[in-house]
Amino acid sequence: MQRAARLFDKHGYHNTSMDDIAAAVNLRKPSLYHYFGSKEEILFWIHQEFIDLIIGRQVQRDDSGLSPEQLLVEVMADILELMETHRGHVRVFFEHHRELPARYQKTIREKRDFYQQSVEDILVEGIVNGSFRKVDPRLATLALFGMCNWAYQWYQNRGDKSSREIAEFFADLYLKGIRAES
Amino acid sequence: MQRAARLFDKHGYHNTSMDDIAAAVNLRKPSLYHYFGSKEEILFWIHQEFIDLIIGRQVQRDDSGLSPEQLLVEVMADILELMETHRGHVRVFFEHHRELPARYQKTIREKRDFYQQSVEDILVEGIVNGSFRKVDPRLATLALFGMCNWAYQWYQNRGDKSSREIAEFFADLYLKGIRAES
Repeated sequence: MQRAARLFDKHGYHNTSMDDIAAAVNLRKPSLYHYFGSKEEILFWIHQEFIDLIIGRQVQRDDSGLSPEQLLVEVMADILELMETHRGHVRVFFEHHRELPARYQKTIREKRDFYQQSVEDILVEGIVNGSFRKVDPRLATLALFGMCNWAYQWYQNRGDKSSREIAEFFADLYLKGIRAES
Repeated sequence: MQRAARLFDKHGYHNTSMDDIAAAVNLRKPSLYHYFGSKEEILFWIHQEFIDLIIGRQVQRDDSGLSPEQLLVEVMADILELMETHRGHVRVFFEHHRELPARYQKTIREKRDFYQQSVEDILVEGIVNGSFRKVDPRLATLALFGMCNWAYQWYQNRGDKSSREIAEFFADLYLKGIRAES
């Protein structure tokens, strides 16, 4: 899956064949088909792995006692870190969800909506406890995702700034933007 | 080009053939080839139209006397408005630039860099004149693009909020985030 994700990222999903994937992992095509019935199935499992990973990070913090501000910093750090560790997965997830067979799309959409809701819930909590302004929590969530997700278009693994530093820069800007005036 | 962009948006670039495009504009395929030598050429002209449009808006404001803050609001409004008026172009521009033949990629990349630089210049101007904090102007530009560009993934033309209202919400959040403390 990791090799396939990398090939999809590099050459495009449509330009990568099961032959290419088999070659990349040193398998004969029949052996690859033993594990995955089709290219769509690999696509699905890349989606699964990605969304389960990020939901897992979020759920782990459920009883952490972190404040809404701190939780948002961690959300942003999670997303930026994936640009480093799961670059191929990220592009697949953002650009190829429409290529999934319908039954798979539903599963992934539900998980994605669950994740988005969990971030929106943090914003609502911050508004209720008075640390954030009364912003529209859905739009504010989409602004946060935008800042971070968009990095898949420009993030390069080349030093200069680490993904954590970028996340902290974005979080600083974002939190100043939504913090209640004191 | 508009019909082609819409087909690419709806069915994906790879799943759309010159036959489909010809049918959508009521042309026979040889007549379509009279205008465009290939699907890649249509892809290129969609890129051109899109980037020229947004650069045009930006350049128009060159001598407007607007403040850096006001200029950033307009930049954000430009991008969000394109989600409404050029939906197909937007997806093509964000997802299919790698499919352009190399010589075309260069042209588009140069224009895109020019546009990005023009936004970064506004940030630098605001930092110099003291209205913005001393943020990293490149990262701050990428944060702005992220918030706005990402809307191509979720923006739906369905009332509730206009693209201008969304842009103003984002601009409010963003400007509070970068404004110098008074």
